[in-house]
Amino acid sequence: MGDAVKAVEGWVNNSKVLGRIAFLEVIDDLSLGVLTVVVKRSEVGPETWELVKKIKIGSAVRVEGVEPPEVVSRKGRELHALRVEVLAEPEEPLPVDVTGKTPAGLETRLEYRYVSLRLPAYRAIFVARARLARYTREYFEEKGFLEVHTPKLVGAGAEGGATLFRVDYFGGTAYLSQSPQLYKQMLMCGVPRVFEITPYFRAEKFDTPRHLNESWGVDAEMGFIRSHHDVMDILEGYVRHVSQRLDEEMGDELRRLGFRPLGKLGNIPRVTYREAIGIVEERGHRVEGEGGDLDTRAERILGEYMAEQGYDAYFIVDYPWEAKPFYIMREENGLSRSFDLDIRGTEIASGGQREHRRSVLYSNLVEKGLDPSSFKFYLEAFKYGMPPHGGFGLGFDRLLMKLLGLDNIREVVLFPRDRFHLVP
Amino acid sequence: MGDAVKAVEGWVNNSKVLGRIAFLEVIDDLSLGVLTVVVKRSEVGPETWELVKKIKIGSAVRVEGVEPPEVVSRKGRELHALRVEVLAEPEEPLPVDVTGKTPAGLETRLEYRYVSLRLPAYRAIFVARARLARYTREYFEEKGFLEVHTPKLVGAGAEGGATLFRVDYFGGTAYLSQSPQLYKQMLMCGVPRVFEITPYFRAEKFDTPRHLNESWGVDAEMGFIRSHHDVMDILEGYVRHVSQRLDEEMGDELRRLGFRPLGKLGNIPRVTYREAIGIVEERGHRVEGEGGDLDTRAERILGEYMAEQGYDAYFIVDYPWEAKPFYIMREENGLSRSFDLDIRGTEIASGGQREHRRSVLYSNLVEKGLDPSSFKFYLEAFKYGMPPHGGFGLGFDRLLMKLLGLDNIREVVLFPRDRFHLVP
Repeated sequence: MGDAVKAVEGWVNNSKVLGRIAFLEVIDDLSLGVLTVVVKRSEVGPETWELVKKIKIGSAVRVEGVEPPEVVSRKGRELHALRVEVLAEPEEPLPVDVTGKTPAGLETRLEYRYVSLRLPAYRAIFVARARLARYTREYFEEKGFLEVHTPKLVGAGAEGGATLFRVDYFGGTAYLSQSPQLYKQMLMCGVPRVFEITPYFRAEKFDTPRHLNESWGVDAEMGFIRSHHDVMDILEGYVRHVSQRLDEEMGDELRRLGFRPLGKLGNIPRVTYREAIGIVEERGHRVEGEGGDLDTRAERILGEYMAEQGYDAYFIVDYPWEAKPFYIMREENGLSRSFDLDIRGTEIASGGQREHRRSVLYSNLVEKGLDPSSFKFYLEAFKYGMPPHGGFGLGFDRLLMKLLGLDNIREVVLFPRDRFHLVP
Repeated sequence: MGDAVKAVEGWVNNSKVLGRIAFLEVIDDLSLGVLTVVVKRSEVGPETWELVKKIKIGSAVRVEGVEPPEVVSRKGRELHALRVEVLAEPEEPLPVDVTGKTPAGLETRLEYRYVSLRLPAYRAIFVARARLARYTREYFEEKGFLEVHTPKLVGAGAEGGATLFRVDYFGGTAYLSQSPQLYKQMLMCGVPRVFEITPYFRAEKFDTPRHLNESWGVDAEMGFIRSHHDVMDILEGYVRHVSQRLDEEMGDELRRLGFRPLGKLGNIPRVTYREAIGIVEERGHRVEGEGGDLDTRAERILGEYMAEQGYDAYFIVDYPWEAKPFYIMREENGLSRSFDLDIRGTEIASGGQREHRRSVLYSNLVEKGLDPSSFKFYLEAFKYGMPPHGGFGLGFDRLLMKLLGLDNIREVVLFPRDRFHLVP
């Protein structure tokens, strides 16, 4: 026990020489803990000792050694070196302080994302990201949703042309998909439930901490529903599932690393648009353009109110139809079978029951000022026994940001894309 | 037992009325089996009976009924109806014969993919696709690879400009990512192993059954390797794992539906480029442009030869460096630490050990006629302790096509994109 020679590889994040013993902090795997490599001159010999004494922070190393029967380091795992090999040395001092003593600014961390990932606190974000993707799939698979891949190069967008990126496509024009909306709906004519984790591309001139021009989303669509409440049941189950799984598997570690994670979500109440407006106005904010979407300030005020009631997450339901896209089902009273899901004042997801009757859908397009001839391929799918259906699109990056208690979406995307960032 | 009332929803794929009993074939979930709904006039009453008698093929229905204690139908599941509700009727006869009697051509199935998915044989392809994605993730997660999302909008491509789609990006130009090559390599400066399932965009004028302009790939990259053989070990493990899982979970069903799946892959031999050329030339085909890639005919001949030796899959290793991209590590003898993985004469994956020494990488770029200033952000990552690393890119669609024994990549992509297909 503890005597077998083990090889580990990783980067030296810190080193300390005390007399004839050196301690190297090595980050070697996705465990988020640091491995302390203890190097004794007497055990490695003079040649390796000289190498270790002068080792540069940031070097890539391979270490062979044995695990001690009892771990002395307070930081966790430990290895007593028998052999140390430097595989690559930094040419220059690292642009991000990987010892964690001097925190780097966001711009530096974005430019040198690959270096900042050597710090457990930043690496943790992307470990959590991969977990969130895993929890997402396990939930939807268990609920009978088929994972699909819809095209990212498209001939028309669901929200109209102004916010689409244009692509030269063999002498013609294609667009980058804003979301799988039209495709996931068409699939409802042949598959009962689908989901996709996918990039969204939006050509808007965003300048906020919660928008990117390339972001990732979770799209789900389900057939044979009775109303948008069936969709909310699935979405509520989803965010509660992933918040619980993340809390179970990483909650303690995240708190140890200085995060303030959201933790496990409880029940998610459904507040009507009318009620939401009432709450916001009672707090002295008049919502501009009544009947439209909630503005950012209104969202924040509502978030504060709901937090006071003990709710981190809540639905806003039954928006006026005029505030919603053409494909949302309208009620006779002018409202719509729609919802948004907000977490602490930020919109995370949006969805509803879709209009599945082709003639009504056609007039909705006209009423919203869109040209039905651009949507011919989409309307076609509504001819062949399209069942009542609904779904949602959810901001994967935003959800992750909220779950981790972070306040800028750029923190959770490896190489974010906005007007000012196309490189690296 | 068998008495509880159960509700199912789906589409009527066929119907038959025999006296006072009707049999509806309903496709209701992802199980790939057909549900036979038995409707007796005496049990449902005259009103529902009239509705069922005239039901249109392709209607979306909800049925409440009970499962019989013993199933009579040879086709599997059965439900005895108590209540039948038509949720949506086709306006026109279905463009694809969902009874399966008259097979539709590929173009029709692509145009009406959503309808063709009601046929178990076509639906099976996309159930297998979702499974393949799942098996892929379970393999790489188990091997310690971090799932990442790299950007699809980029400032430069790994293979040079000619084959990149151009995007208007806020008055400037961006490109669509051909592959995560540069980004996954940069990440090797901070994470030991990464993988991604991702769209690839290539602006080439393809016209073959195995190329698309938007395709899906599996990209993996691993640090701290000793040679490209470490990468091949992982890739071999991967394709053997997924072929085995698919065979276990869907093999019998696929054969029942008329597929000729590849089945479980055995050992994957490693043939050198030199040996491959020898085999091909012995069979009377002179490979054009010696030292370059194998042409399509050479690939096919080699595939036939390997099949005779009992191998469906095989590596071709140690290509001349001139046939490979700038980032592949060159050997002193002019060869390279590279490999392709072929299945039955079709290239499925390509990879190798990368050049991780910045100065060599720089001269490689120059030698290949590329402008190092376009790769500044990428070269930067090689300054800070970049370990030896390698990886591969694998055609997810191609692998699925081969595993299912299909011969056109368009069969396995919901809405394929090529010069002639941008819609639907």
